[in-house]
Amino acid sequence: MDRYFVDFRSDTVTKPSIEMRDAMFRAFVGDDVYGEDPTVNELQEYAAQLFGKEAALFCTSGTQTNQIAINIHVKPGGEVICHEESHIYKYEGGGIAKNSGASVRLLQGSRGRLTASEIEKWIMPDDVHFPVTQLISLEDTANRGGGAVYDFQEIEAIAHLAKSKNIPLHLDGARIFNALAVNGVEIKRYAAAFDSISICLSKGLGAPVGSLLVGTKEFIHQARRVRKVMGGGMRQAGFLAAAGMFALKNHVSRLPEDHDKAKQLESVFLTCDWVESTLPVETNILVVILKEELKRDHYIQKFGELGVKVSAFGPGMIRLVTHLDISSEDMVYTIEQVKKI
Amino acid sequence: MDRYFVDFRSDTVTKPSIEMRDAMFRAFVGDDVYGEDPTVNELQEYAAQLFGKEAALFCTSGTQTNQIAINIHVKPGGEVICHEESHIYKYEGGGIAKNSGASVRLLQGSRGRLTASEIEKWIMPDDVHFPVTQLISLEDTANRGGGAVYDFQEIEAIAHLAKSKNIPLHLDGARIFNALAVNGVEIKRYAAAFDSISICLSKGLGAPVGSLLVGTKEFIHQARRVRKVMGGGMRQAGFLAAAGMFALKNHVSRLPEDHDKAKQLESVFLTCDWVESTLPVETNILVVILKEELKRDHYIQKFGELGVKVSAFGPGMIRLVTHLDISSEDMVYTIEQVKKI
Amino acid sequence: MDRYFVDFRSDTVTKPSIEMRDAMFRAFVGDDVYGEDPTVNELQEYAAQLFGKEAALFCTSGTQTNQIAINIHVKPGGEVICHEESHIYKYEGGGIAKNSGASVRLLQGSRGRLTASEIEKWIMPDDVHFPVTQLISLEDTANRGGGAVYDFQEIEAIAHLAKSKNIPLHLDGARIFNALAVNGVEIKRYAAAFDSISICLSKGLGAPVGSLLVGTKEFIHQARRVRKVMGGGMRQAGFLAAAGMFALKNHVSRLPEDHDKAKQLESVFLTCDWVESTLPVETNILVVILKEELKRDHYIQKFGELGVKVSAFGPGMIRLVTHLDISSEDMVYTIEQVKKI
Amino acid sequence: MDRYFVDFRSDTVTKPSIEMRDAMFRAFVGDDVYGEDPTVNELQEYAAQLFGKEAALFCTSGTQTNQIAINIHVKPGGEVICHEESHIYKYEGGGIAKNSGASVRLLQGSRGRLTASEIEKWIMPDDVHFPVTQLISLEDTANRGGGAVYDFQEIEAIAHLAKSKNIPLHLDGARIFNALAVNGVEIKRYAAAFDSISICLSKGLGAPVGSLLVGTKEFIHQARRVRKVMGGGMRQAGFLAAAGMFALKNHVSRLPEDHDKAKQLESVFLTCDWVESTLPVETNILVVILKEELKRDHYIQKFGELGVKVSAFGPGMIRLVTHLDISSEDMVYTIEQVKKI
Repeated sequence: MDRYFVDFRSDTVTKPSIEMRDAMFRAFVGDDVYGEDPTVNELQEYAAQLFGKEAALFCTSGTQTNQIAINIHVKPGGEVICHEESHIYKYEGGGIAKNSGASVRLLQGSRGRLTASEIEKWIMPDDVHFPVTQLISLEDTANRGGGAVYDFQEIEAIAHLAKSKNIPLHLDGARIFNALAVNGVEIKRYAAAFDSISICLSKGLGAPVGSLLVGTKEFIHQARRVRKVMGGGMRQAGFLAAAGMFALKNHVSRLPEDHDKAKQLESVFLTCDWVESTLPVETNILVVILKEELKRDHYIQKFGELGVKVSAFGPGMIRLVTHLDISSEDMVYTIEQVKKI
Repeated sequence: MDRYFVDFRSDTVTKPSIEMRDAMFRAFVGDDVYGEDPTVNELQEYAAQLFGKEAALFCTSGTQTNQIAINIHVKPGGEVICHEESHIYKYEGGGIAKNSGASVRLLQGSRGRLTASEIEKWIMPDDVHFPVTQLISLEDTANRGGGAVYDFQEIEAIAHLAKSKNIPLHLDGARIFNALAVNGVEIKRYAAAFDSISICLSKGLGAPVGSLLVGTKEFIHQARRVRKVMGGGMRQAGFLAAAGMFALKNHVSRLPEDHDKAKQLESVFLTCDWVESTLPVETNILVVILKEELKRDHYIQKFGELGVKVSAFGPGMIRLVTHLDISSEDMVYTIEQVKKI
Repeated sequence: MDRYFVDFRSDTVTKPSIEMRDAMFRAFVGDDVYGEDPTVNELQEYAAQLFGKEAALFCTSGTQTNQIAINIHVKPGGEVICHEESHIYKYEGGGIAKNSGASVRLLQGSRGRLTASEIEKWIMPDDVHFPVTQLISLEDTANRGGGAVYDFQEIEAIAHLAKSKNIPLHLDGARIFNALAVNGVEIKRYAAAFDSISICLSKGLGAPVGSLLVGTKEFIHQARRVRKVMGGGMRQAGFLAAAGMFALKNHVSRLPEDHDKAKQLESVFLTCDWVESTLPVETNILVVILKEELKRDHYIQKFGELGVKVSAFGPGMIRLVTHLDISSEDMVYTIEQVKKI
Repeated sequence: MDRYFVDFRSDTVTKPSIEMRDAMFRAFVGDDVYGEDPTVNELQEYAAQLFGKEAALFCTSGTQTNQIAINIHVKPGGEVICHEESHIYKYEGGGIAKNSGASVRLLQGSRGRLTASEIEKWIMPDDVHFPVTQLISLEDTANRGGGAVYDFQEIEAIAHLAKSKNIPLHLDGARIFNALAVNGVEIKRYAAAFDSISICLSKGLGAPVGSLLVGTKEFIHQARRVRKVMGGGMRQAGFLAAAGMFALKNHVSRLPEDHDKAKQLESVFLTCDWVESTLPVETNILVVILKEELKRDHYIQKFGELGVKVSAFGPGMIRLVTHLDISSEDMVYTIEQVKKI
């Protein structure tokens, strides 16, 4: 990997800056299994407060925070309502079933998003033939929807439905700050709609490792237990927490830059004659729909040869994700290559 | 339940005849946990031979035989490919996830049936994000397809695919004899396509309780263990096995009568002006599609008042299942009522 | 199995009498999955009333009723406190872990019985390293204790502890009627100590198949769901229920006869010079401790050759269980053989 | 935590030195989910080679590496043979049952160690009543045995038994380097006895976070999948791996110093009139047995007040663990305090 390239495969590929490394180097740490890591404690308190929740827990990945939340909300034989393209179903190794013994009710919906009216139809009646609906889970922004953002009114309608049916509502907020940068909703008000939220520090925010789970005190108390059984308890985790803290404080406000870059790329792609269209960019994900479906891998390879790493999204679609390691020079270079192809 | 009625809700509602009761009364029994129930042993050997498999196991229900098979074929974190309307996913209480920790890959397909080409697309590549495809499960006839029968060539293509990918193939044969009565395939040849088959004795065959699972000796050895943990081991089960034996010997050849009755009913329904159409009858299940979707429950109630029990199938659809407790008189009576409505 | 023998291996080997078969033959049945089997309903109501509980559920085996109860009381990551020799841990195929993902805290105690003071020590503190204590389970009579009966005061102390800690208390009452025949406690008072009780109809009571689970309405509602997922739902189960009903009404009061026979055998064995001692007989189980530990299998075989089937109990111990198929003639014959050896 | 204290609670409380922090600061990192973190890759290759195994995987904790190994070796309904005081049973939150649906066969044995002859007795015969023995797990040094070290001949006998029965053998090597420092066995020869080994970097070795799992290529391939589902996949994990690498290269050879310190403390404690005896020190764990069992917490508190943190071990026992953050000054200070009490 010596030669120059620009990596749009995911916003997870970012590498800590010198400043973030420095924050890690200087971190005060302790044994978090004894609850004695001051930096972890600080991060958890900061996150809880930021989201207006009682408590937070620092975990190793967004898969872990999602799977812990599902494990607490659901008993084996229960069912999770989620989008058929949701990360918790598609990309977490079958964890809903493996970790929690729970079934899935897979719904469709525009660009990875559900509606209250569709969800309502699939809350199962009390009948031994059916699993018991025990969780509704949303994803905002929706990865498989090409970074689509929920209309907050829809979220409120879903939250209302969930409460009325006494079913908890979880948010896979892997890219929650990207959503908040667009929907303009006050963060605590947004968070109040959910019983639990998984927040990723290592995607757009650029921390090397880590996710946060927020919820009630009792929920986080249970989460700590589930994390332990999954082997997610860490000793001197303060180094990672320090990076997460730095990310939360320094990398949230700059997310619109990523969105602008994604839109800029979109407009260039739309001028190419081999491009059919795009999923209109809403945040930092650009999905390009090719004219020739079967040539997807051909284009991915071609871009790779030109030093631009992009990824497959589905049949005939490629994905580019912008993030804080994409510089202005990278953009100039990339746009040149796109035009070349 | 004193007054006269005809019960088309399911073929599970049949009650043993005097002859079947007599076979039960005279049954030799023993402690099957010690393998000493002669009638159970006889039934299992008979079934194994009938299907050309090495061994068979008598269980309490089709849900149990299906769930045992899934449990053996799949490890937690594995995935089952099945139709989105399949009984194993929709009506077994979330057992795939609860009993086996397995994910589902829910495919679509005409009237509850899958195709080899569609299945092939969804055998997951080796990637930690995805569960491992460990089982393909078919249902023939397909209950939610309105008793639709597989084309045996399609089954052969699926079996070929499964073998080439080293993935076991299971059949939920709740109504396997109805399928065999239609597709005309020799029973052993048909069974050879599958690694395991669940066969129901209490549906069209009219036994009071019981299903059979057939497969290799090693598979049935494991099945016995799984059945034990599910609490499905019975002591003097020979009474039930005697009824099952009677059913297998006396009630298979008469299934075409049920199919004829279903077709007869279909032709009457098609003359009604409140009927839009039907799922063309293939076996003993008649699905009637109403003109007015929202009036389904109204019609079910109306039929009930006239002494004809039918069941809901989906929005705007009612289902009638014919079986051995539907006499010629019942048919005459029912047809009268249908015309009346 | 043509030649004459007396079978003391277990009280599960009994075969229905002509009267019981007759009750089965005449049973009214219906589809129990629709809740329409009148005999099943009658049995369940009778059992609930007998034990002073709100509801009851008819299941296929004592393993199933135990495993269902555990599954409802415990969540994965929870822990069951039970005797290290308890049936639920030793003989149910690892079901506590497999069906419910629960750990075991295995305690010792005289002849299969626990004490409140020992239990109290092992209710785990709230610490992520430990599973959460979620169930205490007793067995009365205790099979591996050689049919030992609990002192009811101890049960009351355990029930008091359980309530004070908010932990449910389950009884594996596989031989509950044997215990009640000895401890003299009024049945409803006894049952009131437990949140759920599993009652076996196919051991001392002599029914061919079946167990009952009793508890609150809500508990049984959940039990029906768990039974379904285990495949324990049966269609026309009334035949088995009729036998169970007959057993409950006719075979409870005669249990002291079995106890007398066990004591009679004990006194004979104690006169043999190859016998070290016995676990003093309390109910229908006699455990004989041999002088020569390594000759156990030799004695079992020898008895077998003489037409007396007995079973191994542990190193140097053989077990004889009396039951309703042991006639006076069988006793005379057996005693002769014992003396011969 | 401003005032001076010496922390003997565990060897997990160590904090990275400046040199280790520096190694972390300078680490090359990449996205390990894509397999692109060079430091993680380097650590894994180094560990595999060190132990003479085909492959290694970096995980967040010893609980995670143990639980992953168990999950691969065992299917639900299987059984793990381990010491009744083993970490995998006692301190991993019930993970054997929760994560893997597996039962435990809890054996006794001197100071946390098992013997081949005892294990052999508990490999279950093929009977549906019993779980299937699918794993034997040892712990060396044995934490609950007060840091006791296995005789390698015993390990070889167990390995031989395991192989002959076709049962995998796992080692919880949380303190494997402490054992190797004492038993004098060549590391690759020692490792060859086991199918999988969990190695902790954050105990005696002093890394902040992390454990390694080693085994065959196929085993580690599966481990990566299980880690993913547990949410243990990390993005730029190279920072932690750099610390682990530093620890492996710099902190292994100094472990005998910890052992010497533990022995030094032992000799001082043995002079105290309130001390009954010790579990003779073999490595870095000192267990002090008090004369007055009920005064344990009193002594722990008293030590705490004097600035010496020790922990409870069991009734009447306190534990001190030596590690690389215990300086010579700390030793002098501690010995003074011990004499004072």
